[in-house]
Amino acid sequence: MITFVKFSIMIDDEYYMRAALVEAERALEKDEIPIGAIIVCNDKIIAKAHNLTESLCDTTAHAEMQAFTSAFAYLGSKYLKDCTLYVTLEPCVMCAGAAYWTQIDRVVFGAYDLKHTTIKNKKQLYHPQTKITGGILADECAAILTRFFKMKR
Amino acid sequence: MITFVKFSIMIDDEYYMRAALVEAERALEKDEIPIGAIIVCNDKIIAKAHNLTESLCDTTAHAEMQAFTSAFAYLGSKYLKDCTLYVTLEPCVMCAGAAYWTQIDRVVFGAYDLKHTTIKNKKQLYHPQTKITGGILADECAAILTRFFKMKR
Repeated sequence: MITFVKFSIMIDDEYYMRAALVEAERALEKDEIPIGAIIVCNDKIIAKAHNLTESLCDTTAHAEMQAFTSAFAYLGSKYLKDCTLYVTLEPCVMCAGAAYWTQIDRVVFGAYDLKHTTIKNKKQLYHPQTKITGGILADECAAILTRFFKMKR
Repeated sequence: MITFVKFSIMIDDEYYMRAALVEAERALEKDEIPIGAIIVCNDKIIAKAHNLTESLCDTTAHAEMQAFTSAFAYLGSKYLKDCTLYVTLEPCVMCAGAAYWTQIDRVVFGAYDLKHTTIKNKKQLYHPQTKITGGILADECAAILTRFFKMKR
């Protein structure tokens, strides 16, 4: 039973991470660093966003930040307690700190970000109640970033 | 000479912190947690903002986040390199992480935030080039927060 539940969660995580990857593709089309994010609440996607730092000329316009704001606007609630954030790259300090304020239930990310891990254990930046899962479709999430940076060279 | 420069910086810091305090008062008028922020570039205030988490129903709508976005919109530049952020309360992890991406020259805050220091040394969250000064008009910055929370009890 436990194995089945675990398998089912994994399937869901991959399914939703593919939706986040679609958002990353949208960023790529705009010549933005391709990172996508979605927020799921009770099996429904309630927010979709992608990195817009170049388009908005704002280095804080990360996919996660916009997804949080969209989710709040949709739910009209103070916290994102029954929600899961799916994001193609491991959240940076800013986005982990934002997740803290949302009290989001889960954060699921794709590729690990080895470059911007400014502190050894990012886990401590999140709310104690937030569960973190990393490495979902990690290769695909990393590949789109590699493609972008190769194009830029 | 060094003493004079130091004294002059302190006077400027207090002057600009008072402008941030005016923003905190604006937040208080809206029944928001009274935190204000401004951004100064070459001795000119280019952004003013205050906490709007309740009004916008978005726990990430901190004064600093909005000040950063306003400053980017004003300057149209990729970074806030010649800028100083003045904020009445020590920035949280999210806002420190946001400051990292802006590469802002200086962050000056008023009251120390002992509650939300989730990590022992927040300094490591900032960009290595960002200089941090804390405790400017700390008592006044703390007093407006105390007033707000007393009203709420």
